[in-house]
Amino acid sequence: MLFMVEMLVQIPDSVAPETAEQLKREEKAFSQKLQREGKWPHIWRVVGQYANVSIFDVASNDELHTLLGGLPLFPYMKISVTPLTQHPSAIAAD
Amino acid sequence: MLFMVEMLVQIPDSVAPETAEQLKREEKAFSQKLQREGKWPHIWRVVGQYANVSIFDVASNDELHTLLGGLPLFPYMKISVTPLTQHPSAIAAD
Amino acid sequence: MLFMVEMLVQIPDSVAPETAEQLKREEKAFSQKLQREGKWPHIWRVVGQYANVSIFDVASNDELHTLLGGLPLFPYMKISVTPLTQHPSAIAAD
Amino acid sequence: MLFMVEMLVQIPDSVAPETAEQLKREEKAFSQKLQREGKWPHIWRVVGQYANVSIFDVASNDELHTLLGGLPLFPYMKISVTPLTQHPSAIAAD
Amino acid sequence: MLFMVEMLVQIPDSVAPETAEQLKREEKAFSQKLQREGKWPHIWRVVGQYANVSIFDVASNDELHTLLGGLPLFPYMKISVTPLTQHPSAIAAD
Amino acid sequence: MLFMVEMLVQIPDSVAPETAEQLKREEKAFSQKLQREGKWPHIWRVVGQYANVSIFDVASNDELHTLLGGLPLFPYMKISVTPLTQHPSAIAAD
Amino acid sequence: MLFMVEMLVQIPDSVAPETAEQLKREEKAFSQKLQREGKWPHIWRVVGQYANVSIFDVASNDELHTLLGGLPLFPYMKISVTPLTQHPSAIAAD
Amino acid sequence: MLFMVEMLVQIPDSVAPETAEQLKREEKAFSQKLQREGKWPHIWRVVGQYANVSIFDVASNDELHTLLGGLPLFPYMKISVTPLTQHPSAIAAD
Amino acid sequence: MLFMVEMLVQIPDSVAPETAEQLKREEKAFSQKLQREGKWPHIWRVVGQYANVSIFDVASNDELHTLLGGLPLFPYMKISVTPLTQHPSAIAAD
Amino acid sequence: MLFMVEMLVQIPDSVAPETAEQLKREEKAFSQKLQREGKWPHIWRVVGQYANVSIFDVASNDELHTLLGGLPLFPYMKISVTPLTQHPSAIAAD
Repeated sequence: MLFMVEMLVQIPDSVAPETAEQLKREEKAFSQKLQREGKWPHIWRVVGQYANVSIFDVASNDELHTLLGGLPLFPYMKISVTPLTQHPSAIAAD
Repeated sequence: MLFMVEMLVQIPDSVAPETAEQLKREEKAFSQKLQREGKWPHIWRVVGQYANVSIFDVASNDELHTLLGGLPLFPYMKISVTPLTQHPSAIAAD
Repeated sequence: MLFMVEMLVQIPDSVAPETAEQLKREEKAFSQKLQREGKWPHIWRVVGQYANVSIFDVASNDELHTLLGGLPLFPYMKISVTPLTQHPSAIAAD
Repeated sequence: MLFMVEMLVQIPDSVAPETAEQLKREEKAFSQKLQREGKWPHIWRVVGQYANVSIFDVASNDELHTLLGGLPLFPYMKISVTPLTQHPSAIAAD
Repeated sequence: MLFMVEMLVQIPDSVAPETAEQLKREEKAFSQKLQREGKWPHIWRVVGQYANVSIFDVASNDELHTLLGGLPLFPYMKISVTPLTQHPSAIAAD
Repeated sequence: MLFMVEMLVQIPDSVAPETAEQLKREEKAFSQKLQREGKWPHIWRVVGQYANVSIFDVASNDELHTLLGGLPLFPYMKISVTPLTQHPSAIAAD
Repeated sequence: MLFMVEMLVQIPDSVAPETAEQLKREEKAFSQKLQREGKWPHIWRVVGQYANVSIFDVASNDELHTLLGGLPLFPYMKISVTPLTQHPSAIAAD
Repeated sequence: MLFMVEMLVQIPDSVAPETAEQLKREEKAFSQKLQREGKWPHIWRVVGQYANVSIFDVASNDELHTLLGGLPLFPYMKISVTPLTQHPSAIAAD
Repeated sequence: MLFMVEMLVQIPDSVAPETAEQLKREEKAFSQKLQREGKWPHIWRVVGQYANVSIFDVASNDELHTLLGGLPLFPYMKISVTPLTQHPSAIAAD
Repeated sequence: MLFMVEMLVQIPDSVAPETAEQLKREEKAFSQKLQREGKWPHIWRVVGQYANVSIFDVASNDELHTLLGGLPLFPYMKISVTPLTQHPSAIAAD
């Protein structure tokens, strides 16, 4: 089941730089683990912004919230979620 | 070169139903041709809306505008375009 | 799997009054069938508006889109969909 | 009398983490007390956000404001309130 | 129980002028009946707009929706409803 | 001459709690003085928000600005002002 | 008493061109009469738009609404009104 | 050449009160100098806000930016600029 | 003197197709004349939209309004105007 | 390949003034290097704002993101990107 997830990262000044770097390393590792498991099949950088557009493939809303809430940068992100479904013109199940 | 394209279709009352149906058939054929050519790798339906989220893979802004402007339903769509690029956490070139 | 669905109905002048009445009757029957099946457990009127707030309980995004797209008034509604999940403070699975 | 209440929690940096944790525990207890009393019949988590959608069932606007104003996290929430009423298509009084 | 109700009137071209005038006369009579009954204690014109700000005093959300839905111009109005309650600084119950 | 004034209070963290309490006491006294003088005939709490909807009755724009600018919490409020006038359907001069 | 009034003119297709021209002539005459009377001391065109920014000098909200409601193009304008007052840095009463 | 300039002042907590007072005195002197030179012919206070609506009369965009950028409070203002021109209904060149 | 002008074209159904085509031909000729005269140094198509971003180089606000108001498609465009000036980092006067 | 890039600079209080000055010097040098290389052909100041409108000419979305992400003030800017293409009325390839 597919969802478009848009994430905008805004780390406040009150987070120490080394903490921020550590969070980003953990975020990357977490993201890559989910990509390898097939739950996060696409992640793109939005040009000119510290933001991404992602596609998640999960079994349920619950699983999606658990994954997003577990992101190390979750407290510093604005996230919007758009449920997607198969398009009638699509030539392949996606 | 990747772009997210969001399309919202709003066919006005002044278009006769049979014309609308014909345009939709042409739109589908046009979309599927571009999908087969690899220029429109993803198209998803937004749940609850006559709208889609798509990914285009084109050589240039010019090519993207030519493709979008050629859509049979182009005069009846609100389109927004977001340039994308490789995300540093992505495990595969996409 | 739960979704909040907000529907705002805007039937244009070009729909004949008797057609509009027929669509509303069909909408009501369709809605009540889904309520009886447990797929549309809540529907509330928004005070002062020709709009509703609803909760849907479906197996997937696909099923939700099929249900919403099948609403007789679907062409005349603005719909927004918000995925929901269990709240950690909830005392009952809902 | 039913109201949809949407709450978005934004605890600022100036609140010490242990204070925040204490407030969240009190919030949970307060919410569950109201749920048990039937005044807060539904609370759902919005996927991907530190936010909830709730339904309150109260005797008056005054009672609703007293309950919301008494939430331990009230000073750190953006709250919107939508009055609801029975929908003519609903098969049950809700 | 008090509510602020903001109404913006937009009668489309498709309504014949004499029908519009008839609706306005009925609206005025309906409004004045509710004012005399004490259910619509205040109605003010917004300067420069075909709009009003009103205060309603009703027993419930249901009653408010019944009153608003019964307005002869209801199909041609954008309405927003804000629940109000006693302000702690108010010197009189209002 | 009537104005609707909407005030949203946002006291920042940098104001000490005892200062905030003192300002609120002064605000209340100032508001009640204006209410007794008939210049601030209505003040209502917006349900679920640290905000009010008020009606002011003043001789001029200048007087309104002087009153609002003199509110002890003025530096911490977002204020919007809507000029009102007699509504043609009103049964009483208000 | 001064007000900034912003007017955006949108004459719909359903108004016959000769009617529109007649309304514009009447609007111009009406505006110039008010300018000569000192009630409409400034009117400027917004560059690139069929819109104006105006300053009105009137005795009350009531008078302002009567003037604006009397504009021949009033039914086809979006109007916003901002109450103004003497600025403490102004070197002249304006 | 005329421009409407809207300025909203937001001095942050981090500016010491005496610094803020000094800046406001300098702002007033600077404004009055420009008013006397005829470059800032109108300045009005927006009722209920720490904001003004102004008219500037300058020789070029460059001059306007130089003047605005030179305001002592410039770093703490949100400014919007609207180019104006002679209105065809105006009875005087303004 | 430079201005950024953004134009979004929305030709309504009520304009006959041959009239629309004629207007577009006149628009193109008018635009190219201004480009050759140096008054409209840049015009770019916004990808995916019937819209353009343009730079105008004119002597005054008055001239800009005269040019824009003379566009054959002016009645069918939404136009926004942003005054520009030399940037301190620019290596060339532009 | 052309893009319009709009940048709004907002340096927070937490950046020391000398650091801010150093970043601005580096930003200017970086910008001028890209201008000389032809990748940043236009940069204009928006009148009345600490903001610019720029045109970038790059080989790809990737290159654009690399350039923008490398701006010394990137962490303190809100950036929006609009893909452009040749306009059919343009008299010169731009």
